[in-house]
Amino acid sequence: MNGYFITFEGVEGAGKTTVIHSIHHKLSDMGYDVLETREPGGIEISEKVREIILDPLHTEMDARTEALLYAAARRQHLVEKILPALDQGKIVLCDRFIDSSLAYQGYARGLGMDEVFGINQFAILDCMPSLTLFFDIEPKKGLQRISLNKDRERNRLDLEKVHFHEQVYEAYEILCKRYSNRIQKVDANRDVEQVEIDTLEKIISHLQAK
Amino acid sequence: MNGYFITFEGVEGAGKTTVIHSIHHKLSDMGYDVLETREPGGIEISEKVREIILDPLHTEMDARTEALLYAAARRQHLVEKILPALDQGKIVLCDRFIDSSLAYQGYARGLGMDEVFGINQFAILDCMPSLTLFFDIEPKKGLQRISLNKDRERNRLDLEKVHFHEQVYEAYEILCKRYSNRIQKVDANRDVEQVEIDTLEKIISHLQAK
Repeated sequence: MNGYFITFEGVEGAGKTTVIHSIHHKLSDMGYDVLETREPGGIEISEKVREIILDPLHTEMDARTEALLYAAARRQHLVEKILPALDQGKIVLCDRFIDSSLAYQGYARGLGMDEVFGINQFAILDCMPSLTLFFDIEPKKGLQRISLNKDRERNRLDLEKVHFHEQVYEAYEILCKRYSNRIQKVDANRDVEQVEIDTLEKIISHLQAK
Repeated sequence: MNGYFITFEGVEGAGKTTVIHSIHHKLSDMGYDVLETREPGGIEISEKVREIILDPLHTEMDARTEALLYAAARRQHLVEKILPALDQGKIVLCDRFIDSSLAYQGYARGLGMDEVFGINQFAILDCMPSLTLFFDIEPKKGLQRISLNKDRERNRLDLEKVHFHEQVYEAYEILCKRYSNRIQKVDANRDVEQVEIDTLEKIISHLQAK
């Protein structure tokens, strides 16, 4: 891989999307070639898989089915969008990736992080991000932010109980320790401008170190 | 599991579907409680996943994405249809199951049988069939049968080249050796009546032995 594969993780309402968008523009202004994406990313097959996952009517969805569908959508998005961009030497900023599956399906749904890592390894092979930024905010605060934003569409995951989101947070803390070389924490409790500055600094220092 | 989980495998055009249907009726006449099914089996989530897999327009479908989608559809069909039937003590006759993925994705598409077994083990856990009947016919003969049947709808897999189907056959031969305790061969070159008699005998002797 020529480019830089950077992913963003965190509980719902951590503010990732806003910051990624702003970082994209700042890096572009600095002359970097950037691809901003998130699964399913406009990839037809992945979009269709994602529709199945998030359909609020699919209450009978088994947790293992869900984990396999996320891995499938991830694979196709990776092959059709991320890998070609990395081959062109771009910086890829991806909102959520493998760690979301480890936290949500592996830990919070209780399937086991190692088991979920197994099916994701099948999906991504050795295409792990070189840097992952974990937007650190307590799940209750994140959910409060979401509830204030009335434009945001509710999906099946937003409707989960608070306890579930607390489990997700716990999982991210474990992942931060396990992958301390790859994952860096960003304090997402602050004003968005401060979060942006911190995020940009971490990315620039990663680009320079690599 | 209380019931009996029996699966049927073979290349395209081996005649499985016809025979399973007739066996279903014969076992019912003998007083057995039987469920005849095949993925996606009318299970809404699995049906939607299957539509994505077989859409002839999805030429960009990656082989790993396809394997993960098959495993997802399998999981949901197992949870919603097969396991409840087995719990009720039924004989479940399932047209294709894990061996199809090992043969088609694992071997013929070159992903590796062990790797594909891994994601399927995630999907089915310990719910392996207790008996699998491999309908043994040369792939060329199977494809000839299909071409004679004008009512049969063509899907993306039927359109694959002959070489692919020969690879699938080779894979089944390996699986027959590897799982010789579970998989029994049925010579599918004969008249359908003879194939039915042979299949029924093998099933009855399995039910009596268990």
